[in-house]
Amino acid sequence: MGMGHLVDRRRVVRVRGAGTPEASSTTRPDQLAVEAPLTLKAGDRTIATTMRTPGHDLELALGWLVAEGVAHQAADITELTSCDTDTVQIRLAPGVPIPQARLGATSSACGVCGSDSIAEVLARRPMVGVVSLPIMDASGHQTKSAAAKAVEPLVDAGVLVSLPDRLREAQRAFTQTGGLHAAGLFTPEGELLCVREDVGRHNAVDKVVGWALTHGLLPASRMILQVSGRASFELTQKATMAGIPVLSAVSAPSTLAVDLAEEAGVTLAGFVRGDSMNLYAHADRVRVEAPITV
Amino acid sequence: MGMGHLVDRRRVVRVRGAGTPEASSTTRPDQLAVEAPLTLKAGDRTIATTMRTPGHDLELALGWLVAEGVAHQAADITELTSCDTDTVQIRLAPGVPIPQARLGATSSACGVCGSDSIAEVLARRPMVGVVSLPIMDASGHQTKSAAAKAVEPLVDAGVLVSLPDRLREAQRAFTQTGGLHAAGLFTPEGELLCVREDVGRHNAVDKVVGWALTHGLLPASRMILQVSGRASFELTQKATMAGIPVLSAVSAPSTLAVDLAEEAGVTLAGFVRGDSMNLYAHADRVRVEAPITV
Repeated sequence: MGMGHLVDRRRVVRVRGAGTPEASSTTRPDQLAVEAPLTLKAGDRTIATTMRTPGHDLELALGWLVAEGVAHQAADITELTSCDTDTVQIRLAPGVPIPQARLGATSSACGVCGSDSIAEVLARRPMVGVVSLPIMDASGHQTKSAAAKAVEPLVDAGVLVSLPDRLREAQRAFTQTGGLHAAGLFTPEGELLCVREDVGRHNAVDKVVGWALTHGLLPASRMILQVSGRASFELTQKATMAGIPVLSAVSAPSTLAVDLAEEAGVTLAGFVRGDSMNLYAHADRVRVEAPITV
Repeated sequence: MGMGHLVDRRRVVRVRGAGTPEASSTTRPDQLAVEAPLTLKAGDRTIATTMRTPGHDLELALGWLVAEGVAHQAADITELTSCDTDTVQIRLAPGVPIPQARLGATSSACGVCGSDSIAEVLARRPMVGVVSLPIMDASGHQTKSAAAKAVEPLVDAGVLVSLPDRLREAQRAFTQTGGLHAAGLFTPEGELLCVREDVGRHNAVDKVVGWALTHGLLPASRMILQVSGRASFELTQKATMAGIPVLSAVSAPSTLAVDLAEEAGVTLAGFVRGDSMNLYAHADRVRVEAPITV
């Protein structure tokens, strides 16, 4: 139990004055929210997996059992153990039925530890062209990511910071409800190709990627995916699989989103607001210097 | 395909000037983002379910198949049909393996239509005391919700609007990352009992409910659950199951969140900001008039 491990450090390139002659970037460590998978087990059976921030895992398991209608009182659970950092083992009182494992469309690469989650995504053959596959040694272990290579600039920082506003303008339903997440696919020149909205950010991204597939645009190796809100592992996975080289979020990314982006060769931008942003992985793909205007 | 049904109307009680002598409320219809379950099927097999905003369902299915590493090109899918409003039937090309159904801890009551989702939650025996169970007729159909009865005031509007700030103050990690959702359990007097943070809002709520269970506080029949961000069906389910009578969100609720709250007898507040808020269900539990100060 305890507070666990809420935040962790990653290196970030902070860009200010994007699109202006005063554009500049500095590199510094930054604190990010930790994201890691947790598996709930009853006996040998996996009953649920979720991407969560470590800490209070036993409470999380208990609360989930209440929501599922399994536990109505503390006595319904006889034992709850945190076997390792990624698993909670549940023993239910006699007569309390083990919950049915439920299918989810989210949290795709779950039930494995953080680095395994990344390996699992890369093993699913992300669309090539941009995203680089890891190099395996003879024993099947990843030795060094091909993505570690430098990448060519693709988009101007000044264009990138303009995308959240363009996305919001395109959200017809946004002003009506304020309740919808959005995802948009843009060209490096900032032209909007497709926007989709949903109560779930991951669904909005699926819809955009599905649109790109039906239009013969995958791998979307010269496109930018702009999302409202945060960047999770799951969204980064979806960008990776579709071969999208730049994922840009209005808010913060998680640690696992950054680690996957780094490994997969995806440029990850966060806190894209006003004329500034943070670049968490493969910053080289963003051209920070403004064009020289004589 | 097409734009589908992004928004729908619900009746909302708009409260302004909460906690001031000028406190007032007006009732009007409001547009909410639609949330409804979608099931993806391959043959007879359910491969995924998700709560989504209807519209572009075929794109959603395609994009999801790309993210799972099933589809790498349009030819990997031979047929995609929207059988009804809640199901997409997928036929994969020969040689393309059917994706493994994956377990998720989210989207609990999925794979059924909206009203069935609500019935499924109520059938899971929500903790009684506050949340009311539906009345079934002889054939097992719900005739009228006991929750339709008027509820007693529990919390002052002036207290309710203060909770988001109290929650933010309690979020130690918030200022470090800006990347964590929070859930807090409060007394009707605004005292914070427990706060938990997570990259996933549903996990933060599970942790708070788990804490309450271990402290013998369930059903939490005189408590208020304040969450950062939006109120989804899933969060409303978690409040319902724990017997929490008031769920308050900083942003918008979805249609299905409102419908479940109405049916289950939970007071649902949204857009709780400054001195105003919207009440979407069981507004009677919130005392709008300020105490008379002579």
